This record gives sequence, C-alpha cells and structure tokens, in this order.
Amino acid sequence: MTDVFTATTIPSNDAGTTVDVAELGRALLGRWADVRLQARALAGLPDLHKVEGLTHTEHRKRAFGQLGLLVEHNAVHRAFPQRLGGNNDHGGNVAGFEELVTADPSVQIKAGVQWGLFGSAVLHLGTREHQDKWLPGIMSLAIPGCFAMTEIGHGSDVASIATTATYDPGTEEFVINTPFRAAWKEFIGNAAVDGLAAVVFAQLVTRGVNHGVHAFYVELRDPSTKEFLPGIGGLDDNIKGGLNGIDNGRLHFTNVRIPRTNLLNRYGDVAADGTYSSPIASPGRRFFTMLGTLVQGRVSLDGAAVAASKVALTIAIRYAAERRQFNAASDTEEVVLLDYQRHQRRLLPRLATTYAAAFAHEKLLAKFDDVFSGANDSDEDRQDLETLAAALKSLSTWHALETLQECREACGGAGFMVENRFTSLRADLDVYATFEGDNTVLLQLVAKRLLADYSKEFRNLDFGVLARFAVGQAADLAFNKTGLRQVSQFVADTGSAQKSAKALKDQDTQHQMLAGRVQTMVADVAGALKGAAKLPQDKAAEIFNEHQNELIEAARAHAELLQWESFTEALGGIADEGTLKVLTRLRDLFGLTLIEKHLDWYLMNGRISMQRARTLAPYINRVLAKLRPHALELVDAFGYGPEHLRAPIATGIERERQEEAREYYRAMRASSDAPIDEKVLLLRTKVHGRK
Amino acid sequence: MTDVFTATTIPSNDAGTTVDVAELGRALLGRWADVRLQARALAGLPDLHKVEGLTHTEHRKRAFGQLGLLVEHNAVHRAFPQRLGGNNDHGGNVAGFEELVTADPSVQIKAGVQWGLFGSAVLHLGTREHQDKWLPGIMSLAIPGCFAMTEIGHGSDVASIATTATYDPGTEEFVINTPFRAAWKEFIGNAAVDGLAAVVFAQLVTRGVNHGVHAFYVELRDPSTKEFLPGIGGLDDNIKGGLNGIDNGRLHFTNVRIPRTNLLNRYGDVAADGTYSSPIASPGRRFFTMLGTLVQGRVSLDGAAVAASKVALTIAIRYAAERRQFNAASDTEEVVLLDYQRHQRRLLPRLATTYAAAFAHEKLLAKFDDVFSGANDSDEDRQDLETLAAALKSLSTWHALETLQECREACGGAGFMVENRFTSLRADLDVYATFEGDNTVLLQLVAKRLLADYSKEFRNLDFGVLARFAVGQAADLAFNKTGLRQVSQFVADTGSAQKSAKALKDQDTQHQMLAGRVQTMVADVAGALKGAAKLPQDKAAEIFNEHQNELIEAARAHAELLQWESFTEALGGIADEGTLKVLTRLRDLFGLTLIEKHLDWYLMNGRISMQRARTLAPYINRVLAKLRPHALELVDAFGYGPEHLRAPIATGIERERQEEAREYYRAMRASSDAPIDEKVLLLRTKVHGRK
Repeated sequence: MTDVFTATTIPSNDAGTTVDVAELGRALLGRWADVRLQARALAGLPDLHKVEGLTHTEHRKRAFGQLGLLVEHNAVHRAFPQRLGGNNDHGGNVAGFEELVTADPSVQIKAGVQWGLFGSAVLHLGTREHQDKWLPGIMSLAIPGCFAMTEIGHGSDVASIATTATYDPGTEEFVINTPFRAAWKEFIGNAAVDGLAAVVFAQLVTRGVNHGVHAFYVELRDPSTKEFLPGIGGLDDNIKGGLNGIDNGRLHFTNVRIPRTNLLNRYGDVAADGTYSSPIASPGRRFFTMLGTLVQGRVSLDGAAVAASKVALTIAIRYAAERRQFNAASDTEEVVLLDYQRHQRRLLPRLATTYAAAFAHEKLLAKFDDVFSGANDSDEDRQDLETLAAALKSLSTWHALETLQECREACGGAGFMVENRFTSLRADLDVYATFEGDNTVLLQLVAKRLLADYSKEFRNLDFGVLARFAVGQAADLAFNKTGLRQVSQFVADTGSAQKSAKALKDQDTQHQMLAGRVQTMVADVAGALKGAAKLPQDKAAEIFNEHQNELIEAARAHAELLQWESFTEALGGIADEGTLKVLTRLRDLFGLTLIEKHLDWYLMNGRISMQRARTLAPYINRVLAKLRPHALELVDAFGYGPEHLRAPIATGIERERQEEAREYYRAMRASSDAPIDEKVLLLRTKVHGRK
Repeated sequence: MTDVFTATTIPSNDAGTTVDVAELGRALLGRWADVRLQARALAGLPDLHKVEGLTHTEHRKRAFGQLGLLVEHNAVHRAFPQRLGGNNDHGGNVAGFEELVTADPSVQIKAGVQWGLFGSAVLHLGTREHQDKWLPGIMSLAIPGCFAMTEIGHGSDVASIATTATYDPGTEEFVINTPFRAAWKEFIGNAAVDGLAAVVFAQLVTRGVNHGVHAFYVELRDPSTKEFLPGIGGLDDNIKGGLNGIDNGRLHFTNVRIPRTNLLNRYGDVAADGTYSSPIASPGRRFFTMLGTLVQGRVSLDGAAVAASKVALTIAIRYAAERRQFNAASDTEEVVLLDYQRHQRRLLPRLATTYAAAFAHEKLLAKFDDVFSGANDSDEDRQDLETLAAALKSLSTWHALETLQECREACGGAGFMVENRFTSLRADLDVYATFEGDNTVLLQLVAKRLLADYSKEFRNLDFGVLARFAVGQAADLAFNKTGLRQVSQFVADTGSAQKSAKALKDQDTQHQMLAGRVQTMVADVAGALKGAAKLPQDKAAEIFNEHQNELIEAARAHAELLQWESFTEALGGIADEGTLKVLTRLRDLFGLTLIEKHLDWYLMNGRISMQRARTLAPYINRVLAKLRPHALELVDAFGYGPEHLRAPIATGIERERQEEAREYYRAMRASSDAPIDEKVLLLRTKVHGRK
C-alpha cells in the first residue's frame, strides 16, 4: 500500500499571493455582521452546546432550558414588534438564528419552532389584538407552543390537510376536529411535552362552505398540570435520527371548542353570525399568501446549512493540512493528506460550493428582509422570494449533508468519533432536506415558476426565438454582452482559439454555459408539455409525470446558476488583490465543477467539443493544486473559533503527535540504536554477494 | 403545490408477467442458503435486536450479552477447526455473520471483532499450539479480545505502524512498546471495557533487525478485577457516530513483556537465541500474506452492506407503494408515490444496484471460500480475492449509505423517525466506508492491480495494440464475441441501425461499453505514467498524484463492470420466464444507469453519438415505468420478514389510515353534510352570473 499512490506538494505559481483573511471574513459576514458576531459569541457559550450521549429525554430538558438562556440573552426577539420589545428586524433575526446551529441544531430548531413558526404565525397571520395578547408570553417562553400544520396523511401537501374548524354561530366558537388518524398533526415540535398552546391549521368551515386552510390559536395543556385539555390527545414521536432535543409528537382534536376570536384573521375572518370575509378574494391566492409568511423557515435553514458546511470544512481542512499518510516522495516524511489530488478533489470543490451558497444566502436574506420589512413587498417580490428560498434551501441542505459526510470520511476513523462533530451535525441536519418543504417538492415549485416565466415570455411566439432568448437571459445581472457567443456557435465549439478547458476560465463563458443550460432545459420541457394543458386531466398528468425528472433537473440547474451569479457578484466587493485572485479562482472552480458535473449535457447538446471536454478534468486538477496553498486561509475566513469547532482533530493535536514521533526517531537515529530494516539488510547482502 | 406535478399509474406492457418470488428468493440466497436462513431466524429474535435510545454504556452491555446468545445458538463457530467444535466452513461462516446486521450492526461488528478478527488472527497467524491454547476461550467468549492493529498515527497504512516487539534472549520474552502517542492503538473494539487479551501488531525486532509487522498474543486485563495489567493503559473512545454497542478504545504498552511463544509464528518465528526465520523469504510478500488473512473482514462488510440495502429498499418501496400525495390525475384519489417518475428514479436504480451487488457478493464469497478452504489458494487466487474484495466492498458500502439516505428522504419525515430504521442503520454503517480499509485506499489497490495486469500484457508491446486488447478483454466471461464491435466503430457510433438508446438494451453492447471504458481508462493512465518509474522518487510520486483521481475512477469502473458481469451471470440461473424477463430488465436498468452516470466519458471519448445519448434518459424512464409494477415482487424476493424490517411504515399502517379517511369522506358525501368548497362555489356563481 505504500509505494506509488502518493504525492508530494505541488508548487503553486502564486508565490507571494495571500488572502486577506480579515477582509474576506467581513465579506462573508455580510450585511448583518454585527448580529452574526453577537450570535456567534452566544453560540460559543458552553451552556448552549450540545452534550453528546444524553438520552432523548435528557436532551429535551437541556434544550428547553437553553431556550430560556436565549430569552435571557435577548437573542430571539429581533423580528417582533418594537412595541412588544422586539426590533422589527427580520433579516437580522434570521441571521442570528442561523448561527445557533453551531451550538446545537436542536436549540436552533426548537427556537425556530417557538419563535420562528409558532410566534411568527401569531405575528403574521394574527392581528394586533392577537399579537398583544399572546406574543409577550411566546417571547418570554411563558407559553411554549406548537406549529400544528403537517398531518400524517399529508406531508408537503398543506392544501389537502383534513383537520376541520367548523364555526358554530350558536356559541360563537370554532369546533376543531381531526376526523381520522391520517388527519392527526404529526412531527410537531413541542407537542410531546412542552407545548401549552398551538397554532393549528385547519379547513375553515362556516355556513356549509369550506374556505380553505386557516390558522387557529388553540390551548393544548393545562399550564399547571401539563395535562392535555379535554378533547386533545397525542403521541410522543420518541427518538428521531437527530434533533433529539426537540419533543416532536402527534396531536389529535375531538370537538375542541375555541372562541371565534382565536381565528388568526388577518387574511380571512368569520363574523359572529358566521359570515366569512377576506381581503383576498381568490381562495388560491389567499392560501399562498398565508403560507408565504412561512418562507422564513426555509430562509433560515438555508443559512444554517451553510454555517454547518463551513464548520465541517474548517475541521476537515485543518486536519488534512496536518495529517500525514504514506510516504512515496520521501523515505522519512509522509505526505500531508491535503497534498493528495483526491483529497483536494473531495474537499476543495465543496469549499467552493460553500462559498457560493454563502453569498447566495446573503442575497436571499436581503430579499427576505426587503419583503418582510415592507421595503419591497409586491406580489412579484414575494413570488421571487418564494422561488429563491425554495431553490437555495434545496441545494444548500443537500450540500451540507454531502459535505458533512465527505468530511467525515476524509478524516477516516477520527471523523466517525462523535467528538469531532461531523456525525452529530449530519444526524441533526438530515431532516433539513425534507422539512419546511421536501427538497424534491421545492424544486418542482421552482420548475413551475421557470415554466410560468417561460410561457409568459413566449406566449404567441414561435419557439425559434429561443436562441436569442437564451443569450438575452444569459446577459442578466449586467454581464458584458460582448463576451457572449450565440448558442449556435457552441454546437461546433469552434468559437474559441484554444481548444483547452482553460477558455472556460472566462467569467462570461462560464455564465453563458450555465445560463444557456437552464434556458434550454426549460425550453425543452416546455416544448414537451406544450399540448398537455388541452388534454384531459389524467392524460395531462401523465405527460407531466413523464417529464418530472427533467423538470427537477432544470430547477436544480437554475439554482446552481443563482449560486454562481451570487458568488460572481460578491467578487465585486473584494478590494485586496491577492484575495480577489484566490477568490476568483475559487469561483472558477465552482463554475468548472458545475460544468464537469453536467458535462454529459454539454456534450450531447453540442455546447462543448469532445476535445475541450477531455481537457476539463486535468484543468480542474490544476486549479485545485493552485488553490491548495490557500485552503487554510479560505476556511479561516469563515471566522469560527475553537468554541464553535470543538473538534479535537482541528486543534493541532495531530501535528503535536507527529512531532513527538519525529523527535523519537531523530533521537534513535542519533543514538545508533535503531534496528536495521530487514529489507535494507537483504539489499546489502545482495550487493555484497555481487561483489 | 397541487396541480400539475403529479402522475397517474403508467400502464405496463407486461400485462400478465409475474415474478416467481420463491425462485428469485432462492437465487438470491445462493450457495449458503441454509446458513443464511438459520442466521436470519436468529436475527429475528427480539433479544438480539437493537434497542434505540440506550446510552452507549447500556448499549455496550446489551451487545456483550448478545454475543453470549450467539455462542449459545452456536452461530459463530463455523470457521473454526472441527477438532475445537467448529465446522471449518469459511464461506458459511461469513454468510451467517452478514445476516446479523439486520438485528443490530453493533452485534455484527462486535462479533466480527471477537471471532472474525481476534479469533481469526489466532487461527490463521498462529500454529496449532496457539489455536488449542486460546481458541476454546475465544470461541466461548471466556476471553473477549481485541485486534490491535490500527494506530492513531497510521490508519490504513499498516506497514508503517510504530509499536515494537523487541526480543530479549535473556528472558526469552518480547517487550512490547508504543513509544509515543501516535503509536497508540486506536479505535480498537473491546479495548475500552471488555477485552481481556489482544492480538497486537508490532514491528518485530530481534538481534538489531526489524523484520516488519508481526502479530503477538498479549493479555490485557486481569480477568477477575478487569483492571489493565502492568504497563498497559488506554482510553475510552466514548461515543461514536454509530455502532455504540462496541466499546472502542485506545491501548498503549510500556515495556510489556510476553513469552517468546506468544508470537503468532506461522509466517515468522524467533528461536530462543533470537534467530529469526520465516517460510517466506521476502519481507514484502510476508507482510501481504499475513495481512491477506484479514480479507474476510472486507468480504463480510460487503455482504452486510448488501443486506442493509435490501432491508432499506424493502421498507421504502413498500411505503412508496401505499403512500399517496397530491392529486392531479383525479379529484378524489391521490397518487401513490411509486407512480411518480422521480420516485422511481430515486429507488429503482438503487434496487438494480442492490441486486448487482448481491450477485457480485455471492461470487466474492465463493472465491473467499475457495481460497480459505484450500480448494484454490494459489498466490494468484489470493491476489484475485484481495482485489475483488477491495473493489466490491468499496462500492457496496458506499451504495448502502446512499441507499439508506435516499430511502430515508423518500419516506419524508417518517423516514427520519428512528423506528423506521433508516437513520439508525445509516449511522451504524457509516464507518463501513472507512474501516477494514478506507474505500479510497482500497480502490487505489484495485487500480494498482489493474495497472500491473496491464503492464504484464503490454511489456515490450506498442500501445497501438490497445484496441484489440480492449475488445479481447471485453469478451471475457464467455460473452459472444460476434456481438462486439471494434472500438473504432464507436467513434462515429454508426454501427447500429437505430440511433436510439434502445440498442443499448443488447447485453453484449452493454458489456462492451462497460468493459471498453475500464480498458481505455487503464490504458490512458498507464500511458501517462509510462515514464514515471525511471524518474527520481519525488518526481515519480508527483506524476502519480496528478493522476490519482483518474486511477481511482478506473478502479471504480472496474468494480462496476464486475457487478454487471455478476448480475448477468446470475440471469443464467433463472428458469421461470416471467422472472427472467423482469430480472433482465432490472439488469438493463443497472447497465443503462451506469452508462448514464458516465455518459460524459462515453461522449467525449466518442463511444456514443450525441443523438443516441440524448435518447438515453427518456429510455431509462420507460424502463423504470415497466419495472414499477414488479417493484414489490423484487423486494419480496429479498426474503426479509417483519422481524427483520421492524419498520411501522412497512406494515400496511399507511394504507389502513387512508382507508379510514376514504370511508369517512364516503360517509360524509352520502350524508350530504359535506361542506362545499369555496372554489366550487365561486365557479358556480360565475356560471350563474354568465347565464
């Protein structure tokens, strides 16, 4: 195992180039830098850290106590109205919330349940009266609560939930019912133990008409006995794959009566006589408006996933820069893991993707703040926000899981020890891929939007204009149009003087490749689906299903493009020359590995020549080798301290052990006590024999 | 979210085709069917099952007790000599051992430590005297023991371990030392609590010469007090990402003296006066021979990974065949998940890969038995076994992790509940990817062998003969040569009358595509490395490193080919026509998705035309739709009962809940109490208004 499969350090041609870690760190902290730094200071406190090996009941107790600490530190009220002690700062609230993931994802998500979902529902779906009545108790944690939307029978399909809230004008009450087991509210945080109240989503029925899903404030438990109130029952979800600090459970309701005024009535109300009214006439639009207030869950999961990826890569890259294995290049010194090409291939593209996801998240957060602060909250803004959040949350949560796993494997057995964080973070973040919207469903929402935009653009137009459209779109975001070539030129890939992948280093070319792919994929699916709308429902559904995979892949391509554009835009904010050089190379790595990942598509659609395609992998390998000397700087810029990393293998312990071993061997050689290797002896005998 | 992204059942054109589940089940059970069935009966016992939510100390105690149960049931002695109560049945032993993974992977691996590593080392590296002295206690669990090979400083690089065993002729003892912290034995199962003895691997030094790594039997703890013996110490590894039923720990040795006869001296001995002797003159060959006895760990992990994949897919596919979400095709009935194209894409290719891995494992197990029984144990057989085990273990352990994760996500929140098995199995199997040889290192061993074979074939030959070689090799395993075309013909991909991917359904074409890729990749790397051997050591290492990624990918391609060939060979054993038809289609799916995965390579190397490549994905989608009606039969054939699956979502509970809901709505419609949907009302008003 020891001979040829090894390496030596590849000299970088960037001698002298360095990254200004402080400047890059500031760029990463973004607009809400102060809040992030405050939240990181808090997340560094041992009292907030996850303790491994607790039973799930012990972990739940600890997490509940930690929520109290967050209240004490005034860390979770930023989004609430100033009149109630908040800051009305939506972007800052999410930024701070995300950083808690480094302390314990259970704390982050349990806080998210309490203030981000339960509290937010009262804030955004209720009126001032509701806010004044319940928010103080929610903010202080006097009322731990639940967000009871999901049912066993319907995960991501909220419109189909079966819980009913039927208005009784005789008593001016709503009667809440879960009429069968599939209607039980499931996976509800705070439901198993802590929740005293809940916002329950149910079909509002009055005067014999179902007005669709609305939210109701329902008391669950007697605050003194903690027993369920009459008509309410539940089950404990018990142990989960992760996030065991949260007491998820099921809830069921049998003729539970609540006052009429417990309807959170901002978007739909029922008068005492049972008359329904709503400021939004269309039931469909009303539903999406109410659900739209929940986008902050997706926004914050996107940010938390990025934060966890940063932590993982910091640990794995620091270890890889110290750990030595095998020794082909020298007889005395083994090779540092990060000097192996494969190790660079495993970690550095994920580092590039993490940067892209981080910059994209910052844009998402700004968009979110614009909408929720009211600065820009048109219907279109809200739709853009929904689409952006769905696209980025899907990619970043999957990316975090893949990164945590790759880092764990790249650290071998040490990566498997829970003290080194990867396995624990991975277990906790696992569910991020399917909650607050299953990623597969979210990407279909993105695809739907892409199709809608496409059909708007092309209504009554011939498909022949596609090429112009593709290039036009590719020039979004003020990219220099002169650098772009027509799609048709790509078919033969003869536009460039060079045949090597090096030409793909050009920023406009990368953008054209990525954007052109999205446009073509959308156009292809749109073409295939063209006639479906006129067919009977079941036939139309069949045709859609035959293209489901393509649709999802088009959405993914779109999300990747958004990440690339955000990364590229962020380059504009970097002043230091060395930093810009390295960061541009990292962006190139991101763009090039995206093209490599989808190389089959580029080839079979004639966007790249066989000759150029064959040079791509070797070219990427050279980019990796050039980035390798900056790997530590690039993770240092994430700004996480030992109180966030908390991984023994990221502390320098490996280097210490090696130095101790080296010193031992040095002393032994000096003493000439060292045993001779049998192989060396055999060689000497042979030489001797030949003489 | 509810309209177009949905589907209806795609009618299969296989009306009437059914799978003979019993016959297919027998084919899967393979040569050691009886042992497997016995082991499954055992693994079905509640006393052997993993209990979730235990602390790691409780889990350790339970697992130790479960090892006692295995002894009582006579389940773990098959490989040991008949004179000591075993069966001398190596293949059967591993087959039975693998099945334990369904009970609790900790039980499987702890049993593996005790009997597969500790006991096996005494069996294979010791002489009859050692066996008679220690095996009875090891077999009965009177001597729980460790396999102390890995050191903190050296994971997969065993040749470099730093522990020394220095012979002292004065007392006729070896002195064991771990001279610095990096030499401490690490991640050693049974080391933290249970181990009374260990086989310790150390550099054997006598008369001033280091004869390389040898194995020594060392007592660790006083059997009555369980305290470490003088000179021995250790640390508890505490909580891990999984397998917490095993008490891993570190061990260190300071001048620990053991009798000369505690050297397990089958492959190397030291006489009383300190003279070293060995039946194997070459130190390198001796090292690999000793380590070669450890291949059974890799063999059994391969099988266990396949078993876990089968369990996961059975659960996820049963759930997907019941679970309904969204309703575009009909207003009253939602669509079953497995009818969605994307869901088929997620689960069915992994089902095909699991079949391929299962059949490949059966071949590996036969090869292992041939070597270890002595039926065929030439040097070449042993090398083939090593290569095969390294190739298959890498792919199947990664496949198991990906499959468990995909299944967990495909089951949404329910998949995250620990009671549904995925998260728990995934956490436990995580380390399979890096223990008993890190997969990345193992694939490099495979690559090394491929290069060695290649250079043997081409010594003194011009590279121009490559094309003939490629096709020649592709015709291995008695495939019909007439079906194969020259590589050169593929460049234009004009050889086939049809331009569609359907032509790839042809078995010989699939084989030619997969085998040709391996050969070309190996030849390409070999060409690049041609001159490296003549360069100075550091330059040669640099060139190797520049091609490390390609080397690993070539090895992966080779392993995939082996899986495909095994699957294809297994088709020959299927008599029932319907079963053969479905299984052949599943093999096609495996082959086609491999080609799709590497489509960029086929395109840029001119092995497939752009036109044909574009038809591949739609063609695969059609194959998926044709396999969908047989998905349940294909998982039923795995033969796991509820006592192995133990997942509530695989019990039919979802269907029961749906029937209850359906009955409720039926009754409501009949009673005409059902509220009218506001949307319907609006529509009626509009229609009324128009009149």
